Amino acid sequence: MLIKDRLLTPGPTPIPEEVSSIATQPLIHHRSPEFSTVFMKVVEGLKYIFQTDQDVFVLLSSGTGAMEQALVNILSPGDKIITINAGKFGARWGQIGSSFGVEVKDIVLNWGENYTKEQLADELEENPDTSAVFATLNETSTGTIYDIKGYADIISQTNAVLVVDGISGVGAMPCPMDEWNIDVLIAASQKFFMTPPGLAYISFSPKAWSLVEKSGLPKYYFDAKKAKASMGKKTTPFTPGISLLMQQQKALELIIKKGLNELYTHHRILGDSVRAGVKAAGLEFLSKNPGNILTAVKIPPGIDGNKFVKTMQQKYHVYVSGAQEPHKGKFFRIAHLGYVDGFDILTVLCAMEMAFSDLGYNIKSGTSVAAAQNILKENWQ
Amino acid sequence: MLIKDRLLTPGPTPIPEEVSSIATQPLIHHRSPEFSTVFMKVVEGLKYIFQTDQDVFVLLSSGTGAMEQALVNILSPGDKIITINAGKFGARWGQIGSSFGVEVKDIVLNWGENYTKEQLADELEENPDTSAVFATLNETSTGTIYDIKGYADIISQTNAVLVVDGISGVGAMPCPMDEWNIDVLIAASQKFFMTPPGLAYISFSPKAWSLVEKSGLPKYYFDAKKAKASMGKKTTPFTPGISLLMQQQKALELIIKKGLNELYTHHRILGDSVRAGVKAAGLEFLSKNPGNILTAVKIPPGIDGNKFVKTMQQKYHVYVSGAQEPHKGKFFRIAHLGYVDGFDILTVLCAMEMAFSDLGYNIKSGTSVAAAQNILKENWQ
Repeated sequence: MLIKDRLLTPGPTPIPEEVSSIATQPLIHHRSPEFSTVFMKVVEGLKYIFQTDQDVFVLLSSGTGAMEQALVNILSPGDKIITINAGKFGARWGQIGSSFGVEVKDIVLNWGENYTKEQLADELEENPDTSAVFATLNETSTGTIYDIKGYADIISQTNAVLVVDGISGVGAMPCPMDEWNIDVLIAASQKFFMTPPGLAYISFSPKAWSLVEKSGLPKYYFDAKKAKASMGKKTTPFTPGISLLMQQQKALELIIKKGLNELYTHHRILGDSVRAGVKAAGLEFLSKNPGNILTAVKIPPGIDGNKFVKTMQQKYHVYVSGAQEPHKGKFFRIAHLGYVDGFDILTVLCAMEMAFSDLGYNIKSGTSVAAAQNILKENWQ
Repeated sequence: MLIKDRLLTPGPTPIPEEVSSIATQPLIHHRSPEFSTVFMKVVEGLKYIFQTDQDVFVLLSSGTGAMEQALVNILSPGDKIITINAGKFGARWGQIGSSFGVEVKDIVLNWGENYTKEQLADELEENPDTSAVFATLNETSTGTIYDIKGYADIISQTNAVLVVDGISGVGAMPCPMDEWNIDVLIAASQKFFMTPPGLAYISFSPKAWSLVEKSGLPKYYFDAKKAKASMGKKTTPFTPGISLLMQQQKALELIIKKGLNELYTHHRILGDSVRAGVKAAGLEFLSKNPGNILTAVKIPPGIDGNKFVKTMQQKYHVYVSGAQEPHKGKFFRIAHLGYVDGFDILTVLCAMEMAFSDLGYNIKSGTSVAAAQNILKENWQ
């Protein structure tokens, strides 16, 4: 049979053809007025999505590059930070901090576990000399959403700053940087932004910028002051990802045409429908607070989780993600992020029913589909 | 919500991205060795799909242009033809014949009705002076398959030739031109061939070619002798559809890589699954002999068929086709042709359930999906 590949992974996410096709257009030179026009349109679009009046800088790196930029630009050697670590990406904050010689208070939680603003308030009270708190909007390894607004309410009343890894969350769920008092916010092209991997986005609040001015950690490629100076000249300090920026401009046009509020609603409906489907299939969520970007589903006892993911990918060509180490084989992850629609959700649930049945775990055909369909029907607009 | 457009129409059919993207490549000139290489690769691919040793000519026209080319090249004024007319496209043969002043014996059947080789044998016995019989492999207006092999078995024993409109059928179901003794076979790029509309394909048997030599009907653009002379020079008589040929070359690569037999099986599984879904939903087929390319489904009493198709298209962005005049509103058509896979079938059935429910005709959510899923599961390979 002819089978199409379908990406339901948390990055890369699917790319609209209108965006893919831009990559075949002739490259423009990055020190030209034409490039500046593209670049500044992208920056304007990013400011709209970040909901900030501050500059949003564009890096040619993965999201991790922007995480490093955030950390090395606001800290000095010996500074103390709190990192909220409830998964693979939350853990990364502490790893970067340690690599650069800052003092890391790593709050290690079980994967999928919540962390309340009250817990953070207690932690800050015990550690009043904290320079910065590093949190994650949507922990991609578990699909758990964290209370960024709650954290910001507390942190904004202290001298510390709040740095948020919004890589897989920004755009798909509300995270208004200025309104919530987020100090550093990060995103990346291959998630909500419907663009191939390669661009990372970062913005600093005035409070964070005051730390940038006096930061003593070493940096060159990721120097925010260089980015700021270049922004004044409508360009980037180093060679930018020209074709990716051209694609991002097109994708932002599509996003802005839909509007952020509609896209939040869109992702909420996708999240509701996939959760309804998973529940109807009698399966359990990994996360205590699952969001609308990614759903982590526990593998039922007796079933080989790695084999399930392999069946989904190799037999049905529906790319869901497995669990990452040290939880490999214990759950799988369906992403519903970016250029994904209601029928993609019904498709992944169809494939899930079929793949489990192949492995001897029977879900009555159509059960999870019907539950998701009902949510979609109620909300179709 | 963000909703993707999905084409389940019998032309245009969906185009793989590898094929779409070819259109952005620089054009080559059509009087160059580079063009001849592309052109002859396409011709070789078409011969493989037609299963013929004869030339397959490439027209820059819709399928109807190739129908005209077939008729005007094998007939002379006053010739008598039989046209099997069981739908909009079967009717077209008679209309072209009349336009060019040949004597048309038009066999008008109800839409979706069968026509056996025995009926044709009787008709030919009554009309022994028939020059040509014009038939349709898959009648796109009804999704009905006709017994081309049976017709050919009879006609090949007479002086008449058999002309087959294989526009929507060739490639998706067996129709070996040489083995079956088909005299003229026609196809078009926007159907099985996974390429945008614009190219039509036609091949003549030696028996048909002997009629071409003496044909007296007027023609210029559609002159088969001109096409034949140009084929000897590895080109076309008039400006060809260069970008479309470049796309068709790529699509043929994909098709040949899969192999015809596998693609016949593929379409059979899609046909079986969509029919299982339609039956499980309690709906009825229009056709007495539905094929694996398109399924025409009767609109249940009391439901507005035009509104159903409009709901599918405008609300769910799943493009199925309505019925054509004079049956508008009475049935709808799901095409499962070309670059369509099993999950596309599940998607169209999901949308069908939802759209009928919107119009007050309730199909239990997931019912038709489950039935199709079971067929797909059994046959997945």
